[in-house]
Amino acid sequence: MTAIEILRKKRDGHALSPSEINFIIDAYANGHVPDYQMSALLMAVYLNGMSAEEMGALTQAMIGSGDVLDLAGIPGRKIDKHSTGGVGDKTSLILAPVAAAAGVKVPMISGRGLGHTGGTLDKLESIPGFQVNLPVDRFRRGVEKIGLCLIGQTDQLVPADRNLYALRDVTATVESIPLIVASIMSKKLAEGIDGLVLDVKVGRGAFMTTDRQAAELADALVATGRSMGKDVVALITAMDQPLGHNVGNALEVVESIATLRGEGPEDLTTLSVELAAEMIHMAALAPDLSAARRLARRQIENGRALAIFRNCIAFQGGDARVVDEPERLPRARGTMSLVADQSGYLTVIDAAAVGMASLLLGGGRLRKEDPIDPAVGIVLQAKEGDPVAAGQVLAEIHYNDEAKKDEARRRLDGAFRISDQPVPSPPLLRNRING
Amino acid sequence: MTAIEILRKKRDGHALSPSEINFIIDAYANGHVPDYQMSALLMAVYLNGMSAEEMGALTQAMIGSGDVLDLAGIPGRKIDKHSTGGVGDKTSLILAPVAAAAGVKVPMISGRGLGHTGGTLDKLESIPGFQVNLPVDRFRRGVEKIGLCLIGQTDQLVPADRNLYALRDVTATVESIPLIVASIMSKKLAEGIDGLVLDVKVGRGAFMTTDRQAAELADALVATGRSMGKDVVALITAMDQPLGHNVGNALEVVESIATLRGEGPEDLTTLSVELAAEMIHMAALAPDLSAARRLARRQIENGRALAIFRNCIAFQGGDARVVDEPERLPRARGTMSLVADQSGYLTVIDAAAVGMASLLLGGGRLRKEDPIDPAVGIVLQAKEGDPVAAGQVLAEIHYNDEAKKDEARRRLDGAFRISDQPVPSPPLLRNRING
Repeated sequence: MTAIEILRKKRDGHALSPSEINFIIDAYANGHVPDYQMSALLMAVYLNGMSAEEMGALTQAMIGSGDVLDLAGIPGRKIDKHSTGGVGDKTSLILAPVAAAAGVKVPMISGRGLGHTGGTLDKLESIPGFQVNLPVDRFRRGVEKIGLCLIGQTDQLVPADRNLYALRDVTATVESIPLIVASIMSKKLAEGIDGLVLDVKVGRGAFMTTDRQAAELADALVATGRSMGKDVVALITAMDQPLGHNVGNALEVVESIATLRGEGPEDLTTLSVELAAEMIHMAALAPDLSAARRLARRQIENGRALAIFRNCIAFQGGDARVVDEPERLPRARGTMSLVADQSGYLTVIDAAAVGMASLLLGGGRLRKEDPIDPAVGIVLQAKEGDPVAAGQVLAEIHYNDEAKKDEARRRLDGAFRISDQPVPSPPLLRNRING
Repeated sequence: MTAIEILRKKRDGHALSPSEINFIIDAYANGHVPDYQMSALLMAVYLNGMSAEEMGALTQAMIGSGDVLDLAGIPGRKIDKHSTGGVGDKTSLILAPVAAAAGVKVPMISGRGLGHTGGTLDKLESIPGFQVNLPVDRFRRGVEKIGLCLIGQTDQLVPADRNLYALRDVTATVESIPLIVASIMSKKLAEGIDGLVLDVKVGRGAFMTTDRQAAELADALVATGRSMGKDVVALITAMDQPLGHNVGNALEVVESIATLRGEGPEDLTTLSVELAAEMIHMAALAPDLSAARRLARRQIENGRALAIFRNCIAFQGGDARVVDEPERLPRARGTMSLVADQSGYLTVIDAAAVGMASLLLGGGRLRKEDPIDPAVGIVLQAKEGDPVAAGQVLAEIHYNDEAKKDEARRRLDGAFRISDQPVPSPPLLRNRING
């Protein structure tokens, strides 16, 4: 078996066998297959696709490139959630404590923001002292004791993904469903979980912009997880406008805390509860989804979810006082209002533009090495469908740097559209795929 | 303009602009675009193709990576020939002296053999002392004074092709018409020629195994050359059985000399005369192809072509006495006969198997670094269509190493097929494409 033979086979549109996929991933990890052969294979996979069996084998081979966490010693079902990335998407910070409060064990390994989408780790790190790099033993203790622990990728889990992802990034092979599936599922299944709830975003601010693309990705993710013996369910949810009102790291922590108090915006609360309910249901802690939803909402109403978030922050070295005194979180020096230039109905808030504006303020990164300003961001004062009057504030820019504020402002030109007639927004919860 | 944007465009099936193609070839040549991006682009080109305009732009960009020979000072039309590679194909050694004898200037830059096909340089180097690496000035002098000069690729001509070819070889992107066209045409047009005669091989022993593939390649080669203002014509010719009787470096020189004496096998003589006639006609030294054919044959009959070959060998440092005393060429220590195991008609001599057998004897190379044994090879004693009797010698293996002889012998098992009834062979000259 040689890399060339495997390349030729995929080039000619044939399916690779599990042993061929293992060989190439292993040889790449060991440096026996150079980047230039792997990148040619990535392009062939991008253009010729992969079967469900190939995706499963690729996921398995990538998991095999490193360790798999052993969480078997922790009683209870271990369930995680993964989102394909959105703007203002802080559901992890809400649903993880909610699910944990209901008895789910949530071992969550998250990523950082890249491009216009935010990352859970960056949001958590805006809490003073919060540590996202914990030794595996302490991570395990957190899951067992508190019910959740939120950390970053370790060097030992799926090392093949780091190299492959970096290569995909520079060879225009990121947007390939088989490669996305293997990257997501290998990292999640290496966590040693029993089940996974997926939030596949669709819309202007998402990676997948059409329902068809999103359904194709969701199907592939669910099928691959199932083929590996895991419970997997995917919700396809709207990402046209930002989720909630706040975009930016500390600003999103503030809104998450409000939502855990039962004072969150409707869309964010609905989606967080829905995803938490899926986790609760998957953990067999409720007989059906309606009961799981009620159980989830109760964890907010009775304050248990907020208490668990407080414990989680403390366990991970953060200043848990932020939960009750959000002013302890970093705040930007200046704010500037964006106002409506006409009266009517707000029909569009372009999530991608808002996400890019937040990035330009310093809240995100274009390259992995870029530093993050935790304080900056955008706070929406109206949402799609709201009636607005000329001169009314649509959003506030929280900034630390005048020049960046101007850049962000320019980016927001045209991000808001006001029409004479209301236009019904597409539903937030679009579809549920459970194999 | 970035490599990623260009990759994405070709990945998505769009045509690249000349400036995009120039950018990427230039950046690759300068080391600004790494191998892994170029190999992903090569795979995208392999799978999504290139338009005629893109092939022209790629050829031009590759020529621009190095120098172009200036042969303008040499009076007369400069015409070269290129073959896509065959077994026993020694036509260059015959047609170049024939065309030169008729007044064509033949500046021929050739390659080495790789895989089962032979290379002109390896054949010439079997002549003791023959130098294929000449300074450009001496090459120019040879073309002007003798009418032909036969050398190898210089470092200054199309350096981009060397790197790209090496990368294609290890990324399963060799068999791509746009990449083949740009590789061939850039090297040939950098010679500073006015016109080019192409011999596109089709059949069992050729790179292109079907008439459709061969016609597609020939069309693309001719169109690309024409778009760059050159005269180009392509003959599509059979490469099912080896051309002539001799396969192997010195053995092919012996047969070339016999052909220049008018004592060559019919197929080799016919094809050499036909290609030389195209060159003579392209150089406007004959009013039509029939007259050009007659002029070519006359150069053999009157001994002028042989005299020119003698001069060429001497000019390039070789022992010109080999022309009259072929026993001065390297000869293998042993010969072994392969005999017919039944009576009937020889219907198949598999050129690829014969080429591989010659390679295994030491006459070719699997890797560029492999040394060549000039003496070894195969001499056919019968050709397709011949009636043969059981026990009759079909071929002789010329070998220097017993183990290699046994390997070659095994490779020849099944290379010869004898049937009760004669099967008409497909015609040698298949098609002529002149745009």
